[in-house]
Amino acid sequence: MSNERLIYLPLGGAGEIGMNAYVYGYGKPGQERLILVDLGVAFPDMDSSPGVDLIFADITWLKERADQLEAVFVTHAHEDHVGGVAHCYSDLGAPVYARAFTANIARRKMDEHGHPIEAVRTASAWPEQIKVGPFTVGFLPVSHSIPESAGLVIDTPAGRVVHTGDFKLDANPVVGEPFDPDLWAEVARPGVKALVCDSTNVFSTHAGRSESEVGPEITKLVQDASGMVIATTFASNVARVKTLAEAGQRAGRSVVLLGRAMRRMIEAATETGILSDFPKVISAEEAADVPRQNLMLIVTGSQGERRAASAQLARGKYRGLEAKEGDLFLFSSKTIPGNERGVIRIINQLSEKGVDVVDDSSGLYHVSGHANRPDLEKVHALIDPQMVVPMHGEHRHLREHAKLAEAGGRTGILAVNGTMLDLTGNAPTVAEYIETGRTYLDGTVQIGALDGVVRDRIRMALNGHVTVTVILDEEDEPLGEPWCDTMGLPELGSSRAAIIDVFEEDLNQFLMRADAKTLRDDDKLEEGLRRIVRQTAKAELGKKPEVTVVVSRMR
Amino acid sequence: MSNERLIYLPLGGAGEIGMNAYVYGYGKPGQERLILVDLGVAFPDMDSSPGVDLIFADITWLKERADQLEAVFVTHAHEDHVGGVAHCYSDLGAPVYARAFTANIARRKMDEHGHPIEAVRTASAWPEQIKVGPFTVGFLPVSHSIPESAGLVIDTPAGRVVHTGDFKLDANPVVGEPFDPDLWAEVARPGVKALVCDSTNVFSTHAGRSESEVGPEITKLVQDASGMVIATTFASNVARVKTLAEAGQRAGRSVVLLGRAMRRMIEAATETGILSDFPKVISAEEAADVPRQNLMLIVTGSQGERRAASAQLARGKYRGLEAKEGDLFLFSSKTIPGNERGVIRIINQLSEKGVDVVDDSSGLYHVSGHANRPDLEKVHALIDPQMVVPMHGEHRHLREHAKLAEAGGRTGILAVNGTMLDLTGNAPTVAEYIETGRTYLDGTVQIGALDGVVRDRIRMALNGHVTVTVILDEEDEPLGEPWCDTMGLPELGSSRAAIIDVFEEDLNQFLMRADAKTLRDDDKLEEGLRRIVRQTAKAELGKKPEVTVVVSRMR
Repeated sequence: MSNERLIYLPLGGAGEIGMNAYVYGYGKPGQERLILVDLGVAFPDMDSSPGVDLIFADITWLKERADQLEAVFVTHAHEDHVGGVAHCYSDLGAPVYARAFTANIARRKMDEHGHPIEAVRTASAWPEQIKVGPFTVGFLPVSHSIPESAGLVIDTPAGRVVHTGDFKLDANPVVGEPFDPDLWAEVARPGVKALVCDSTNVFSTHAGRSESEVGPEITKLVQDASGMVIATTFASNVARVKTLAEAGQRAGRSVVLLGRAMRRMIEAATETGILSDFPKVISAEEAADVPRQNLMLIVTGSQGERRAASAQLARGKYRGLEAKEGDLFLFSSKTIPGNERGVIRIINQLSEKGVDVVDDSSGLYHVSGHANRPDLEKVHALIDPQMVVPMHGEHRHLREHAKLAEAGGRTGILAVNGTMLDLTGNAPTVAEYIETGRTYLDGTVQIGALDGVVRDRIRMALNGHVTVTVILDEEDEPLGEPWCDTMGLPELGSSRAAIIDVFEEDLNQFLMRADAKTLRDDDKLEEGLRRIVRQTAKAELGKKPEVTVVVSRMR
Repeated sequence: MSNERLIYLPLGGAGEIGMNAYVYGYGKPGQERLILVDLGVAFPDMDSSPGVDLIFADITWLKERADQLEAVFVTHAHEDHVGGVAHCYSDLGAPVYARAFTANIARRKMDEHGHPIEAVRTASAWPEQIKVGPFTVGFLPVSHSIPESAGLVIDTPAGRVVHTGDFKLDANPVVGEPFDPDLWAEVARPGVKALVCDSTNVFSTHAGRSESEVGPEITKLVQDASGMVIATTFASNVARVKTLAEAGQRAGRSVVLLGRAMRRMIEAATETGILSDFPKVISAEEAADVPRQNLMLIVTGSQGERRAASAQLARGKYRGLEAKEGDLFLFSSKTIPGNERGVIRIINQLSEKGVDVVDDSSGLYHVSGHANRPDLEKVHALIDPQMVVPMHGEHRHLREHAKLAEAGGRTGILAVNGTMLDLTGNAPTVAEYIETGRTYLDGTVQIGALDGVVRDRIRMALNGHVTVTVILDEEDEPLGEPWCDTMGLPELGSSRAAIIDVFEEDLNQFLMRADAKTLRDDDKLEEGLRRIVRQTAKAELGKKPEVTVVVSRMR
């Protein structure tokens, strides 16, 4: 046994908030049996990934070792934890374990991708355990902002690891199990080698607040409203959706759920028995006959997503319903950094309709699903591990969390994506650095983030595009004049002539003067024509476009 | 006189925070003599304006009436108020009035554009007044986050208008004149028809805080730091830069100003006599010889701008200086919504270097330059106008500000860009709606926001681009096969064949089957070829690219 080791390797999630993918391995170096915890996605943005549909962690390392992989464990059903399971199933092939609600969501994804839903296996909560290879894994119920979140208790020949998943300490989470310190103490009792711990809220210095605190405030707000009330939150925050629906019901309002994700989540929560007492809902069609002061819409799109119900209601009608002067719109949510523009756009569109918008700036209508700094300290103390390994955070979060552990007298180690830690000994060591990165789902195709595809798209977005076409005859002499097409460029340049004419004039001059050697050489000719376009564009437009040169030869 | 009127027409700034441009007119309808208050810019983003350099309000309405324009008054030297003055000078030609510091900045811009700097005239503060046409205008000193900000007291035959510009109520603004309630009362005494008022902070419910409050906190922070200290703020916030520099000096540190804008602003403030006791600064070269714990860098780039000194220091060296483990980086600034990603990128890069980052989340190291809600109420009461016209805000700010005015028993009117108000009577009326919009500076060329140029660039960023080339012989028969070039598309499609080959195969099939009528008709042929590429791409890649078709005919 002495030459076997326990390794930890984050492929995603340790260096960003999103696309979680954490590998654990046990065995002889290079022959470890592996498990993967979570396989999530991140979301693209115009600045760095225009046109991309989803972002995965680059799991090449794991694909090459698919035969060593025993199983995938999914802690909860948020997209940044479960979103990649179906997309990567063909590459990994391992069974997927999750608690019932998460498994329900995962199976829907597998089904959509034509994979066997039996590959997703339902796990019961701790103290039940699942034995896979050298690992014995239990799902420890934790509170978060989605039902049936779990931490993982991972027993190995080298000791116990507690992987928290996303969690908070909530004594009254509205839906699901409250935080149970005795249960955590029981897990800690045999001694814990490593606590691999959520870092999201390490900079929030106040104690975390309970999901149950927002209910009375929302109820009051809805009761005082005189028009229609529209509320948005993450669809997957079933507890919040329930709180919102109950607030509507208490105020004598009929509740309407709008948005596919909203209905799907409530469906999954009902199917799995998590939600048994959700208020009666009516359809959008039925709502047409209800006076607006008796309506409460609960809608998708808390992050300003353009196609979600919230954005559509802000722009105009959605399924026959329309926001009007005197209505109230509640963001029972926090805007994720980077989504501000979309959210603000909606708020202003609603303002134009005379709708009053309430957001969480008062702190009354939203609470976070992650453990704040004092709660992290509490968990460090409760689990009392040999070492704390921060995960689920950007670099700044991981670093701060490691410092927090050290301040508490424990070993804290900063391991970003690609850092393989050897956890076998009393202190963690870096075993290896693995090349990691991002894989894009672009339409239906997976491409590497560094393949240049997206880089070219960004360049066209910034600089526009010019197509240059030249035909050469059998003697390599120009046949007619060169011509241009532009896309994403102004029609007129600073000389006030049509920019295409200016390009063509300058290109023609170049061709007339070009020597036979240049005209015979495709590369030289293309390079010359490209240079002319870029020079002329710089002079006329102040920018250098991307150029595609097409040289056709009659010979 | 009875058929003359006083009009107010925002062309920019009333519906967004940025690109301020407010027209006032007095005279017979259609023949009013006009003044323009501020002529600013807004800044582009990848989501909606990729590749654009600056955004102006569309001032077509004003250009067409340049002969009616008496003057441009600039309230202060922020880019969203002064940034368009030089760019639009050729179109408007009117003299520009501003207080000394603002005039200094405006003249630098005029000079860079080759315009006469004499067109910018220095105005003294109230009670001096400038007579232009039917208007008599005085510059009322106000506190803001840049030196010598001014409100305008605009006297007209129909009464007095007070246009606040950007302002806050600060009894101790560190640089410049403190808020003087007696002066404001003096302005109000003859009676004020309309208060046209900054709305930025109408949602901030606490009283505004003084610039002087951050000094002691920053000093403490700098004194406690053990490594090099780097601080960033808006370069134009001369008071803050002074506060930062003094904090460095007190802590026995040599002060270095980094970034062109930082040096230019301090230069302008010194030239105009506003800054006479700024601590001694040393150059980056001199700093190389100073121990890092004795250094304080004050740098540009508080909004995460990629090319600014802050971003360069986060990435690596800047002018020989480098941030290291144990250094402290202070954001003495607020992140403007939309800039979060850039700021967070810098914070994480600094974290990777082991630098501790402090931002304004504690509220200790930054105060806003705009009047909060209670301060707005105070100003409404102090000026006691017939009507309040909110400006400088998004729709939500203007609407809330109008409601605040109404709640105070005054007439509040929501007038967004393009709304021409007639202020002549006791109550404002809407005289007309003018078409407004945005003009982009794209490289060196001005284009309309709706010209389609930027739309095409966004489409290429989302979908990629394909060039299709076909040559037809004298009989309109294909000469050889069609070929393709792609940009911003994956190399392989879902069939695992090179996507270009798949395109060319499908295009060739199409050409072989095309009838003579299609082959003769450029439009039909192009349309057909484009459709094939988009269909094939949809099947192979899951997205429909932009397509440029080039058909060359030998006849």
